[in-house]
Amino acid sequence: MALIDKDQGTLVLRRPAEKNPPRTWRSWLIGRPLATADAPHQTIGKAVGLAVFASDALSSTAYATQEILFVLAVAGATASGYAFPISIAIVALLTIVTFSYRQTINAYPNGGGAYIVSRDNLGELPAQIAGAALLTDYILTVSVSISSGIAQITSAFIWIYPYRVELAVFMVILIMLINLRGVKESGMAFAIPTYFFLLMMFITMGVGLFRYLTGNLDLVLDAPAVLVETTQSVTLFLLLHAFANGTTALTGVEAISNGIPAFREPRSHNAGVTLIWMASILGSLFLGITFLAIQIGVTPSEEETVISQLARTVFTERGGLYLGVIAATAIILIMAANTAFADFPRLSALMAGDGFLPRQLTYRGSRLVYSRGIISLALLASLLIIVFEASVTALIPLYAIGVFLSFSLSQGGMAYRWYKIGRLWPDQVIEERGSTLRYDTQWRFKMVVNGFGAICTFIVMGIFAVTKFSEGAWVVLLIIPILVLMLSAIHRHYRDLAGGLSLRKYAAPPRISRHRVILLVAGVHQGTLAALRYARLLSDDITAVHISTNADESDRVCQEWEGWGNGIRLVVLDSPYRLLIEPILDYINQIDARRQPNEIITVVVPQFVPSRWWHNLLHTQTAFLLQVALIFRPGIVITSVPYLIE
Amino acid sequence: MALIDKDQGTLVLRRPAEKNPPRTWRSWLIGRPLATADAPHQTIGKAVGLAVFASDALSSTAYATQEILFVLAVAGATASGYAFPISIAIVALLTIVTFSYRQTINAYPNGGGAYIVSRDNLGELPAQIAGAALLTDYILTVSVSISSGIAQITSAFIWIYPYRVELAVFMVILIMLINLRGVKESGMAFAIPTYFFLLMMFITMGVGLFRYLTGNLDLVLDAPAVLVETTQSVTLFLLLHAFANGTTALTGVEAISNGIPAFREPRSHNAGVTLIWMASILGSLFLGITFLAIQIGVTPSEEETVISQLARTVFTERGGLYLGVIAATAIILIMAANTAFADFPRLSALMAGDGFLPRQLTYRGSRLVYSRGIISLALLASLLIIVFEASVTALIPLYAIGVFLSFSLSQGGMAYRWYKIGRLWPDQVIEERGSTLRYDTQWRFKMVVNGFGAICTFIVMGIFAVTKFSEGAWVVLLIIPILVLMLSAIHRHYRDLAGGLSLRKYAAPPRISRHRVILLVAGVHQGTLAALRYARLLSDDITAVHISTNADESDRVCQEWEGWGNGIRLVVLDSPYRLLIEPILDYINQIDARRQPNEIITVVVPQFVPSRWWHNLLHTQTAFLLQVALIFRPGIVITSVPYLIE
Repeated sequence: MALIDKDQGTLVLRRPAEKNPPRTWRSWLIGRPLATADAPHQTIGKAVGLAVFASDALSSTAYATQEILFVLAVAGATASGYAFPISIAIVALLTIVTFSYRQTINAYPNGGGAYIVSRDNLGELPAQIAGAALLTDYILTVSVSISSGIAQITSAFIWIYPYRVELAVFMVILIMLINLRGVKESGMAFAIPTYFFLLMMFITMGVGLFRYLTGNLDLVLDAPAVLVETTQSVTLFLLLHAFANGTTALTGVEAISNGIPAFREPRSHNAGVTLIWMASILGSLFLGITFLAIQIGVTPSEEETVISQLARTVFTERGGLYLGVIAATAIILIMAANTAFADFPRLSALMAGDGFLPRQLTYRGSRLVYSRGIISLALLASLLIIVFEASVTALIPLYAIGVFLSFSLSQGGMAYRWYKIGRLWPDQVIEERGSTLRYDTQWRFKMVVNGFGAICTFIVMGIFAVTKFSEGAWVVLLIIPILVLMLSAIHRHYRDLAGGLSLRKYAAPPRISRHRVILLVAGVHQGTLAALRYARLLSDDITAVHISTNADESDRVCQEWEGWGNGIRLVVLDSPYRLLIEPILDYINQIDARRQPNEIITVVVPQFVPSRWWHNLLHTQTAFLLQVALIFRPGIVITSVPYLIE
Repeated sequence: MALIDKDQGTLVLRRPAEKNPPRTWRSWLIGRPLATADAPHQTIGKAVGLAVFASDALSSTAYATQEILFVLAVAGATASGYAFPISIAIVALLTIVTFSYRQTINAYPNGGGAYIVSRDNLGELPAQIAGAALLTDYILTVSVSISSGIAQITSAFIWIYPYRVELAVFMVILIMLINLRGVKESGMAFAIPTYFFLLMMFITMGVGLFRYLTGNLDLVLDAPAVLVETTQSVTLFLLLHAFANGTTALTGVEAISNGIPAFREPRSHNAGVTLIWMASILGSLFLGITFLAIQIGVTPSEEETVISQLARTVFTERGGLYLGVIAATAIILIMAANTAFADFPRLSALMAGDGFLPRQLTYRGSRLVYSRGIISLALLASLLIIVFEASVTALIPLYAIGVFLSFSLSQGGMAYRWYKIGRLWPDQVIEERGSTLRYDTQWRFKMVVNGFGAICTFIVMGIFAVTKFSEGAWVVLLIIPILVLMLSAIHRHYRDLAGGLSLRKYAAPPRISRHRVILLVAGVHQGTLAALRYARLLSDDITAVHISTNADESDRVCQEWEGWGNGIRLVVLDSPYRLLIEPILDYINQIDARRQPNEIITVVVPQFVPSRWWHNLLHTQTAFLLQVALIFRPGIVITSVPYLIE
């Protein structure tokens, strides 16, 4: 490595990088550090991408049908016949959302989640709302999915129940560590369980449909007791409520559009194909489960899930295949959290880059992932799990509102984008807010599709908010505006800072005309003399200051100073109330009041450096206390000169 | 107030004190600050001194008799007849201890607790053992007395029981605040309850003895059930065990000898008289209670205390006088904690002055009391109360070992002192370790008295340790050596520090020949330029250093530096692993390796000063992290130049 030659005369000198990455205890936990130059290689293909980004969406098939049937149950057993049409409507909505997002992915090859689309097309406030909604929902995704997965396990093994919170938090930490290792490894770690889940579900579907077509599919034996009383008739509101509940199947669909940069080139193409795969699988699974569930007459129940009833009816017994389905479902639910771990850090880094969140979130850790975002998500989700005691029932009403809010904003933004594109001349291309607008002959059709999607998802969100308000949805409706205010405050700070520090209208102040140095003297010893030696380097204008709390002691200091003080004046400040910091502040205030412009004051504090940490407890931290007390004073610099005892 | 004239030419300048003490929120809580000059007036007379220092000793009469009877109960009801002779033996021991301490008080007018006596006569290690034993026991005194007082209250009002820990901690805080106000006020606050207790107890004694002499004293009616089975015969061990248990009456006797400096002049005389008063009251109360308790045939019980049985039998009903006795007992037990609050801070300040505890403990707070010692005691005692859930039964086995250990050391030290005095010529006076040894014709008698006391208290301690080892005494036998090791380590640190800083063999190093300044540049803005302006004041030898984690960003920094950098060389350090601190450290290490002797390096870090606390969360604290990383490096000074945005 080239050392710097001070006589080289170069104004700017670049130094090459070290070859070997630093190794710490973290290397053992999350792998050796990766250089920034390695970044492009850390991307994933379509098959792994499906596993990483789709587990959230696919896992929702585990509960979406059940949620529809729960609502319809209040209108009696026959009302369950409405479930299949409702599911078809939901799949239609899924199709609309999928096409909308595919258009977004093509328009935003660098990642086009709801936040970016809202920001580019609707402006700052909608972008902040979308961002706040998404961040909230990612945190909830982790809490709900993990809690739900653990609930599956504890239903099978009841003795685990008392440890569910600890187990859930442990799972969060495990997924956090996998994600801290980096996206490629986490893709591999999650591909196998995702594909295992798909395999088990399609075997169930296939066997179930075969038996249905050959007339061998029986009704559910020993169905759980019906707990819901028939109290209502089938109304439009009831059907909309069931529809809204079923749309939880759509949560997670937006994940891929946020994660485009993680895909291998050509990114937009790969991400778009993966989205279509995911939507097709999700739609057919959801329709298949709903169809078969109605045929075998499942009963929605907290005791036994629809998946469990379906699997044991299709396979006619609680055998190996049944256990395989249950295990795969539990695992995919826990892993759905991984989708949030893939997207939350990216979104928060994006928003931090725009100055809406602390800049530190843009920092990539040793493994090139946004480690601070990953850790923040793990902490917040664990907190929710602990507060709600890993209860899915308590968490679920908070969930999904944010998703549909961001869907509406994203699709509304796209619709407005098509409107703007429609106003261009044919073949005209304009750049607006960093994205390219290019005339498209199909703009009317696309605008209608996106606009219709936006209206639908907005209605779904409204129904969610109204029907679940008192169950907990109010918390989210409160948190999102608070988050938006926070984002705005952070943004204002960074904007003010940039303005305040700007050099645009900056005139260099005149050279400093006087440099006063104040040296604090507690006692006369080698440490004090080292600080004095340093102070003499800074200026000839030095005043030593001693705070006298004990007359005998300060007499001794004065005496010794005459011998060792190099003729520098010592001011003894009486402190009748035995205070240390306040007399110094008073003294500095007086000097400050008479200070000339372009005069600067440096306070030199000898600071003892302990050789063991606990030695700190044996010393008054004057330098630190003074630094805290004086930090708001312009033109005053505190310098602590360390001294060590070998 | 005189301002400093820099042309005055005086080497040492004294500045007068401010007249008005600073007023803060603390003034409201503990009173306005007192000037150091007010100190001598904050002393107390004999009557108040008795209340402040004797509540601990006097309160032990509330349980000492009961503790004797508990042990004798295992040898059957008739064995209780041994209680009175045992009490006489304990009072004899009390007399010996009292005379020993009176001699100590005369020899040590500035305070002569076990710590000082051991230090002056036996040396450093015995002094540390005595100190550790006393500190442990003061903490236990607070925990035990408060818990016991609260237990009295909760026995009467059972609904308070669930809140006993909170109530006990609240009491500790209350007594802490009273003590933080200062000794005079706390004396007044505690005098009334102490004298109320004495009044109530002597009324009980008087009425009881009158009835006994007139033949009207009945046996206890409805005595509590005897829970202890008769399993042993009367053995010497049993009697010694009962004796040891009864000697809890002696805990607190040493308090006055530690507190002599709090007394009004003539201090030794006043303290000595107070000690005699206290011992006489304690002895007669203890004998009276034991005598009457046997006459009325009390049953030792956890359900009803001996005091309660005695009071209701003497007053023939549970009337106003009975309730007065119970209330006074509860109050005196809670107040016994105050004795520890009077002595613990003084002892810890004394030991800190000798360099065995952190020096900060010698600091007198705004009210001229050792506030840090008072707060430390409150914290430690509260911790014990919380850990042991305010259970007296759990705390009591830890108690009293420390007292008797310090008694033994103190009296042993005095015996050795008389031995040394005996070896002087008549009328010879020598100064040894700060105390005066003067020939005394009675040295043999006094040596025997002290030596006998030392042996007796040592035996008592041994019996305590053996009979209560498994109940919890082992904790104390473990903690005291650990504390002694801690005290030694602290002492070693201060001694090494004083040696290392000593100017005795110090030769002033040559003037610093080169002052290199390294200026950290994260971006080019007004804050950076302010730091650059300051750096140019320090030296002409400046290197600006920029850590490059992002190529585009550092290109911009280089470009802007060419415009604003005043021709100062900028070194760009590539950081491929996106680290901030490590590349700077590497760079400094390289410069350091080639550093000449008498060359000093100052690292100037521009530090953003937020106008709101939460803005700190939005910035990386580079200056602070660097300071932590470089603090162990001699010859490197970190200066952070603050910049504010208005």
